[in-house]
Amino acid sequence: MKAIVISVGDELLTGRTLNTNLKTIAEFLGRYGIEILRDCTVRDNQEEIVKSIKEALKDADVVIVTGGLGITVDDVTREAVAKGAGVKLIFDEKLYKEIEKKMIERGVNITEIHKNYGLVPKGFELIKNDFGLAPGYWGNLNGKILFVLPGPPHELRNVLENAAEKFSNLSPVNILVKTVKTFGLKESDIVEILKDDIKFLTPIGFYPIVPGMVDLKLTLKGEDTEKLQEEMKKKIDILKERLGDAIYGYDGDTLQSVIGKMLREKGLTIATSESCTGGLVANLITDVPGSSDYFKGGVVSYWNEVKHNVLGVSEVILRHFGAVSEPVAIMMAEGVRNLLNTDVGLSTTGIAGPTGGTPEKPVGLVYMGVSIRGNTTVIERIFKGDRLMVKKQAALTVLNLVRLKLEEI
Amino acid sequence: MKAIVISVGDELLTGRTLNTNLKTIAEFLGRYGIEILRDCTVRDNQEEIVKSIKEALKDADVVIVTGGLGITVDDVTREAVAKGAGVKLIFDEKLYKEIEKKMIERGVNITEIHKNYGLVPKGFELIKNDFGLAPGYWGNLNGKILFVLPGPPHELRNVLENAAEKFSNLSPVNILVKTVKTFGLKESDIVEILKDDIKFLTPIGFYPIVPGMVDLKLTLKGEDTEKLQEEMKKKIDILKERLGDAIYGYDGDTLQSVIGKMLREKGLTIATSESCTGGLVANLITDVPGSSDYFKGGVVSYWNEVKHNVLGVSEVILRHFGAVSEPVAIMMAEGVRNLLNTDVGLSTTGIAGPTGGTPEKPVGLVYMGVSIRGNTTVIERIFKGDRLMVKKQAALTVLNLVRLKLEEI
Repeated sequence: MKAIVISVGDELLTGRTLNTNLKTIAEFLGRYGIEILRDCTVRDNQEEIVKSIKEALKDADVVIVTGGLGITVDDVTREAVAKGAGVKLIFDEKLYKEIEKKMIERGVNITEIHKNYGLVPKGFELIKNDFGLAPGYWGNLNGKILFVLPGPPHELRNVLENAAEKFSNLSPVNILVKTVKTFGLKESDIVEILKDDIKFLTPIGFYPIVPGMVDLKLTLKGEDTEKLQEEMKKKIDILKERLGDAIYGYDGDTLQSVIGKMLREKGLTIATSESCTGGLVANLITDVPGSSDYFKGGVVSYWNEVKHNVLGVSEVILRHFGAVSEPVAIMMAEGVRNLLNTDVGLSTTGIAGPTGGTPEKPVGLVYMGVSIRGNTTVIERIFKGDRLMVKKQAALTVLNLVRLKLEEI
Repeated sequence: MKAIVISVGDELLTGRTLNTNLKTIAEFLGRYGIEILRDCTVRDNQEEIVKSIKEALKDADVVIVTGGLGITVDDVTREAVAKGAGVKLIFDEKLYKEIEKKMIERGVNITEIHKNYGLVPKGFELIKNDFGLAPGYWGNLNGKILFVLPGPPHELRNVLENAAEKFSNLSPVNILVKTVKTFGLKESDIVEILKDDIKFLTPIGFYPIVPGMVDLKLTLKGEDTEKLQEEMKKKIDILKERLGDAIYGYDGDTLQSVIGKMLREKGLTIATSESCTGGLVANLITDVPGSSDYFKGGVVSYWNEVKHNVLGVSEVILRHFGAVSEPVAIMMAEGVRNLLNTDVGLSTTGIAGPTGGTPEKPVGLVYMGVSIRGNTTVIERIFKGDRLMVKKQAALTVLNLVRLKLEEI
C-alpha cells in the first residue's frame, strides 16, 4: 500500500515551525507496511490544498492531510478536504455539543465562528482527539482512504493512535517491528560483524544516533503473528550473539532508563561528578521518571577549586597531572561517592572546546570514570565535533560505562 | 519572488530522518524576501525528481533541490537535475581534482564510482561546500534559478551561506530582519500591550518558544539600507519602551549567553544548586563557550540528605516546610554560594512529576531562588506540561531571575 502526505500550514514554509509530523506519520504507517510516496507541504490556501488532494488520490491508496483544522480564517483544510473529495460539509450537532463542552471547560469565549468545529465532510467518520478540539476525519472514497489529522504534534499522535485499528484492518498482513539499540560500535563495524548474517536479518535498517550509538530496526511482515514473533526472536538471538554487550536495550529504552532499571533492581544508589559535561549527565539521569529512587545527586566541579574543596581531589595531583587526567577522573568518581554516600559514583573531565586545547591535550579529550564500591575504572576518549557534541558523547559514554560495570556485579 | 523546495531522500519518507532543512531554507530565503510556495519531499527516484523539478520551474522563480548528491546507487539527484533542466552532465576535471584531494585526506578508498563527484550539469555554476565533498550547483534557466544543495544539514547551511551574495543579487530590495527575545510574558499579553503600536510595527511575527518565552521578529524591506536601519531602530525603541525588561536579548542571544555576558562584565562568579531541574540549569550555563570564566560549578541535591549534608539546608526546615518550599530554596541558593565561594548562587526545588504531587503541592510547583551577595529572592510558579517541560520551564525561569537580579546591581 502507498500513501501520500499533505502537510498544510504557512508556518511550515516560513521557517516558523519545524515539521515533525511527517516523521511521526512515517513511523506509524511503517507499522502497517504502508510506504509514503511523497509529502507535499502547502500553504493555507484552499485551491492548492484541493489540487494536492486530487492529485494524491490518483497516485496513492491512502492520502493523509494534516493541519489547518482550527477555526480562524487561515484554517481552510476542512473545506478543502470536502472539495477535494467531492462531498459537502454537513453540520454534526452531536460533535459540536461535545466540542462546546470542552470549550466551556477551557473558558473559551464562544462565538458564531466556533460552530465551524461541527462541520464534517459528508460520509466521513470521526476519529477521536483526546487532547484538542478538532477531531480527525476518515473517509473511504471508492476504496481510497482520505484521512485528515489535526496539526499540533501531540494531537496528531493521539488521533493516529486512535485510528490504529482502522489501519490494521486496511492491511492484510501483520507487521512486527523491533528496534535493537547499541552503543560502542560504529555503523561500519556493525555491518562488518554482521556480514555473514545480513541475508537472514534483512530487512534490517541501521540508524546512527551519534557516533558510536546505532539503532538497528528489524521489520517482519506476514499473516501469522505467532510465526512472526518466533522469527523475530531468532533474529534478535543472532544479534545478541554477534553484538554482545554492545546492545543496551530495545525500542523505547535509553541508556539512562536502562541504568535506572539496573540500579533499582540491585538496590543501589548513584551520584555524578561532572566537569566538561557540566551537568548534562545528571540532567539525563533525572529525565527518567522515578529517578529519585536511586539518584541522590551530583556535583558539577567546573573549577579546580571545587574539585579540591568539595570532592577532595588532591591539589598535588591537579597540579602535577592537570584537571584533564586519569587520576583526577578517579578521584572525582570516588570523591562524589564518598561525599554523597552512594554505591556508585561517576565522573567526567575533559576539554569541550572550542578553546582550551593543547597539542598534548586536544579539544575533545575526555576521561570518564566509574567507581562502584571499592572498584574504579577510567576510560579515555577523543571525541570529534563541536562543544555540544563533545558534551553529549562524553555524557552517553560515561552512562554506558556505568551500564557495563553494573552488569559485572 | 516565489520559491519551491524539493527535498530528496527515502530517509525523509520512512521516518528515519527528520527534515530540518526546509526550516533552514525558509529562514534563509526570508532574509531576501523570497517566499516558499510549497515543498515536495520525494524519494530517491529519478523520474519523480525530474517531474517535480519540471513542475516547480513552471510555478516558481527559484527552485531549490536538496539531497541525493552522494555517489551511491541511491543518489540520483545530479542526473535528475540535468534532465529536469534539459542539459547534459559534464565532467569537471578541476572540481574532481579538488574533491579527490579531500578524499585522500579523509582516507577514502577511491574507486571509479567516485568520479561521479566531478559531474556538473552543463552551464551550472559551482557553490563551495566547506564541510563535505559534493558542492552546490546554481543554474540560470531563462531567468529561473535552479539551485541544488547537499542534504546533510551542516553542509546545506554552509552552501546556502556561500550563495548569499547570489541571492542578494537576485532580489532588488534589501531585507533587514531583527529578532527581539522576551521572557515572562504570554503571547496574548504581548499582543495586548502592543495593540496601539501594531500598525507601526507590522510586519511583526510572534514566535512562542515555551510558555512565557516569545520571540518577536521584525522584518523591513527597502532599497536604502541606512533608512531601513533607522526605521528598525525606531521599532525596537518602541518595543523596549513597551516591554521593558521582558526583553532579554536579540537574534542569537540565549538567557544563558546573556547572563554569561553580564557576569563577565561585572566580574562575578556563579554557582547552581538544583533539585527538580536535576542539572539542566548547569548544563545550559555550560553550553556557552567560555562559561568556565564565571561558572565555578554546582550541586544537584536530589535527596534531602544531600541538601542538608552538602548545602547545609537545616533538617528542621526540611522537616517542617518540606523540600519543596520557599525557605529551602533560600537555603539552597545561599548554601551553594557559601560552599563554592561565589558572588551568585541559584536554586530550584519542585515537583517535576509525573508522580509526587499532593493537593497542597501539585506536580509543576517549583520554587526558584537567587542569592547575590547578601540578597536572596525566591519566586514560586506552577508550570504545566510533562516532566521534561516542567524541568525546562523551571530552568529558564531561574536563569531569567538571575538576569533580572543582575540588572539591579
